Amino acid sequence: MSTAAPLLLTPGPLTTSARTRQAMLVDWGSWDDRFNQLTASLCEQLLAIINGAATHHCVPLQGSGTFAVEAAIGTLVPRDGKVLVLINGAYGKRLAKICEVLGRPFSTFETAEDQPTTAADVDRLLRADGDISHIALIHCETSTGILNPLPEIAEVVERHGKRLIIDAMSSFGALPIDAQEVPFDALIAASGKCLEGVPGMGFVFARKASLAAAAGNSHSLAMDLFDQHAYRMKTGQWRFTPPTHVVAALHEALLQYHEEGGLPARHARYVANCQALMEEMARLGLRSFLPAAIQAPIIATFHAPKDPRYQFKAFYERVKAKGYILYPGKLTQVETFRVGCIGHVTPTQMREAVAVVGEVLREMEVLEI
Amino acid sequence: MSTAAPLLLTPGPLTTSARTRQAMLVDWGSWDDRFNQLTASLCEQLLAIINGAATHHCVPLQGSGTFAVEAAIGTLVPRDGKVLVLINGAYGKRLAKICEVLGRPFSTFETAEDQPTTAADVDRLLRADGDISHIALIHCETSTGILNPLPEIAEVVERHGKRLIIDAMSSFGALPIDAQEVPFDALIAASGKCLEGVPGMGFVFARKASLAAAAGNSHSLAMDLFDQHAYRMKTGQWRFTPPTHVVAALHEALLQYHEEGGLPARHARYVANCQALMEEMARLGLRSFLPAAIQAPIIATFHAPKDPRYQFKAFYERVKAKGYILYPGKLTQVETFRVGCIGHVTPTQMREAVAVVGEVLREMEVLEI
Repeated sequence: MSTAAPLLLTPGPLTTSARTRQAMLVDWGSWDDRFNQLTASLCEQLLAIINGAATHHCVPLQGSGTFAVEAAIGTLVPRDGKVLVLINGAYGKRLAKICEVLGRPFSTFETAEDQPTTAADVDRLLRADGDISHIALIHCETSTGILNPLPEIAEVVERHGKRLIIDAMSSFGALPIDAQEVPFDALIAASGKCLEGVPGMGFVFARKASLAAAAGNSHSLAMDLFDQHAYRMKTGQWRFTPPTHVVAALHEALLQYHEEGGLPARHARYVANCQALMEEMARLGLRSFLPAAIQAPIIATFHAPKDPRYQFKAFYERVKAKGYILYPGKLTQVETFRVGCIGHVTPTQMREAVAVVGEVLREMEVLEI
Repeated sequence: MSTAAPLLLTPGPLTTSARTRQAMLVDWGSWDDRFNQLTASLCEQLLAIINGAATHHCVPLQGSGTFAVEAAIGTLVPRDGKVLVLINGAYGKRLAKICEVLGRPFSTFETAEDQPTTAADVDRLLRADGDISHIALIHCETSTGILNPLPEIAEVVERHGKRLIIDAMSSFGALPIDAQEVPFDALIAASGKCLEGVPGMGFVFARKASLAAAAGNSHSLAMDLFDQHAYRMKTGQWRFTPPTHVVAALHEALLQYHEEGGLPARHARYVANCQALMEEMARLGLRSFLPAAIQAPIIATFHAPKDPRYQFKAFYERVKAKGYILYPGKLTQVETFRVGCIGHVTPTQMREAVAVVGEVLREMEVLEI
């Protein structure tokens, strides 16, 4: 099997470069200075992407992105805090579920999956409930690819003197966020997304003062970001065994991120990927679920063809046999499928992928799109 | 940099084979059938190692081994249960800390770090406190390398009608454990230990009936093993993004484990590694901390030389410069250092490593051992 095929057009795990994967060919001692330096360099580079070194700590955490989201809520929301969770998709719902399981008081505000939450909504909700201490928001909701207006919402939260927790899993590294302009207590992302590393660790940018005040909040030993950070500051090491190869791959991916031109270049490539995808899909008659104005260049959702000969599973398998892995839809009301625009992929490859989608639909005799 | 050097003589992360690392050169779609089959095959092979298919489920979990230990306690001990934690080292203390943070009632029984807990101790403790529902035990305590008498303790626990949770992090795969002979509710291990995978995931063998009764126990969403298992049974997938490359590496490591001859062969090689280490260290005059009878062939602890010219940091750096990474001691009362016997390492390499230790001590003019 080729190491590059099939190409993943999925929102993470995604396609990584051969160089990133080759960085995993070395074993690292987790106690060794060289590995500690790798972690320190990683955290420094991550902080630089959000211009956060002055105000925030970067706390890496073992596990998937959801582990880091749970850790951020468990560590930074005091047990008597109250979280307002803004929902327009599956990941917003997961935030609410985390609050429920952790026993943190919370309320939810849900809009339709093609409807961004607005700053006016948040302003109204904060006026109505003085108990709310924290607002939790999904920046780009991977369920559809919808982009929520982060800067406007952050400004309203700040004006009310409340604290913002941002799940930026699928946007961090590709969409600009400046910690000095967009105030937040925590912003969470993971290795296997727009930085194009492999999955296995997340990280939380936590406001220094908030993290310092968070001792004893956590419901969990392993997910206590206060302890995790304090231990690294004291020893240079991860508190528990780090996913050494995943860390090395992310470090190598970051070198390539900078070589490519950092966030502006990564953003531009993903925009070009998304445009290529949209144009070619439109040619086939496949309709985007979201209007362009609220579509992030991260993942796109398409209405499934109406033709009864279309069936996602068969469609998926045929496209995969020709070298591309697509992603199923995640909407309950409408039949859709998704295509990721992120990863070590170019606009040309996106066009080639859509050409294959066209071929497969013709082979399946799907006529009514 | 060579992909093989320096050799890790550490208890995980440890030295893996080139073939295991090369399995990470492929990107996998986490939703794809082929990846689901990889996970299913992994769990099946892991269960076979403990002869547990009839009685236990294997639940893989993202993160380090400690995440899996916390998940096992949080999921399997009801909120009104009480855990007796048996301690003779740092990992036993960590078990108690997990119970404390999770708010599970617990008591501890601590012996000296060179003193195994006995079945008689457990019998007496269970007679004295009828509230105890679960006993938590470290099989091989990595702090020193001491082996606790698992079969005898399991028998006593069973006789009292109580439930046993075993942290077998550093023994699973190398020391024989048969789920049909040693009764337990949970046994926990991880990818980057005696199976010689890379770190990044753990797994819990949970008794089927106990897991089925564990809905709603967990303090955490991400670490809820009941949900984690139910989701995989329903969908074939991991509940949250899996560390795909780590999973692929562990699968490849398991193929090699079977090719080598499974547990008997792995055990024999580690015993030979440990014997070679002990013999050569004894030649240098370096004394083992533990008596041979309670020394597991996993990691060995040595008294530091008495000579004031010995200093661990300098010793470590010099040995590393010659190609071997050792491990610091973890005892508070006695100055020690540790050498792992596990990983993709042979007795010949152990002898070569000790030859280097001898060279370095001579270079440092450490005369009084």
